[in-house]
Amino acid sequence: MASDLVLLAAVSALSVFQQIFFAIQVGRARLKYKISPPAVTGSPDFERIFRAQQNSMEYYPMFLITFWMAGWFSNQALAALSGLVYLYARHKYFSGYSKSADGRILGFRMSLGVLALLVIQATIGIAYDFLNDN
Amino acid sequence: MASDLVLLAAVSALSVFQQIFFAIQVGRARLKYKISPPAVTGSPDFERIFRAQQNSMEYYPMFLITFWMAGWFSNQALAALSGLVYLYARHKYFSGYSKSADGRILGFRMSLGVLALLVIQATIGIAYDFLNDN
Amino acid sequence: MASDLVLLAAVSALSVFQQIFFAIQVGRARLKYKISPPAVTGSPDFERIFRAQQNSMEYYPMFLITFWMAGWFSNQALAALSGLVYLYARHKYFSGYSKSADGRILGFRMSLGVLALLVIQATIGIAYDFLNDN
Repeated sequence: MASDLVLLAAVSALSVFQQIFFAIQVGRARLKYKISPPAVTGSPDFERIFRAQQNSMEYYPMFLITFWMAGWFSNQALAALSGLVYLYARHKYFSGYSKSADGRILGFRMSLGVLALLVIQATIGIAYDFLNDN
Repeated sequence: MASDLVLLAAVSALSVFQQIFFAIQVGRARLKYKISPPAVTGSPDFERIFRAQQNSMEYYPMFLITFWMAGWFSNQALAALSGLVYLYARHKYFSGYSKSADGRILGFRMSLGVLALLVIQATIGIAYDFLNDN
Repeated sequence: MASDLVLLAAVSALSVFQQIFFAIQVGRARLKYKISPPAVTGSPDFERIFRAQQNSMEYYPMFLITFWMAGWFSNQALAALSGLVYLYARHKYFSGYSKSADGRILGFRMSLGVLALLVIQATIGIAYDFLNDN
């Protein structure tokens, strides 16, 4: 079965690299703005980068489960493509938010839009499966 | 195999909708209490809603992995039912916490209780599988 | 298929217990240092324990997806062993961070190292699968 879902796995591996990249940026911002753990406030520049990473991590489980269900119950290639667009939107969100609070908006909306598409793909796939096999 | 676990997928899809609903409530609370990102403090009303969503998101990966393992290694219908009760408990927790700090307690305890049940289901299923196939 | 991945499931169940253990420690620290929800600041001792748990929860989805992909696409026993070392590193991180800010460093680096190993296992497994079956 592993091979059947290899595109989902490849995009997931890419998403792990992205999460690690975001975490590294927070570590660097801690050094740059001299915010020592456990503090998470003290500099608006640090706080934006921290919130950008936090938000990306918070949405990550939602993204993963929706992404896998979309690819598994619906169309894997479409889900994989949507997943790549989601990662791009998150990249845009993170780099925008790192620069200014308003910079987060475009990437964030884009990421929510793609997540909504994945939710729709997953829901249709699950509903179809449920109605046809039960 | 997808069809075999369609109940778990359906409850998971529902759980994604719930997480998105919680996130939308935080966005609305930001507007209502005028807490602009990246700030996450400044109004106790906002802070309660924010913490309610944060806590729900934090437990979400734990819930998902336990829920899927319970359904996969033990009984799917029982896990799906427990999952629905968990989502109800989280709803109670979120709406209670949005109103007052004490309002969080009942729903939170209920959610922990159901999570414990799922952990037990998963552990028994995994232990049984391990002992019988190795 | 469940039986094929029972080692991954067993380590995952253990990881859920660890996450619950961390969450219980935060609850106890709230009582000990008298930090009532929704507050998350007010005592450096509480803040360290809170950040230790937050960080562990934040990395948890990354760990889970990487761990399962490593075990699924590469070698299950190796992934399970790496997973156990990761849980040990997180334990070291949490107990170290609970005592002092510097106490977090060794366990954290160790956990990142093991996560990197799992990422490499997963990536090689996925790449191999992709090249051989497509």
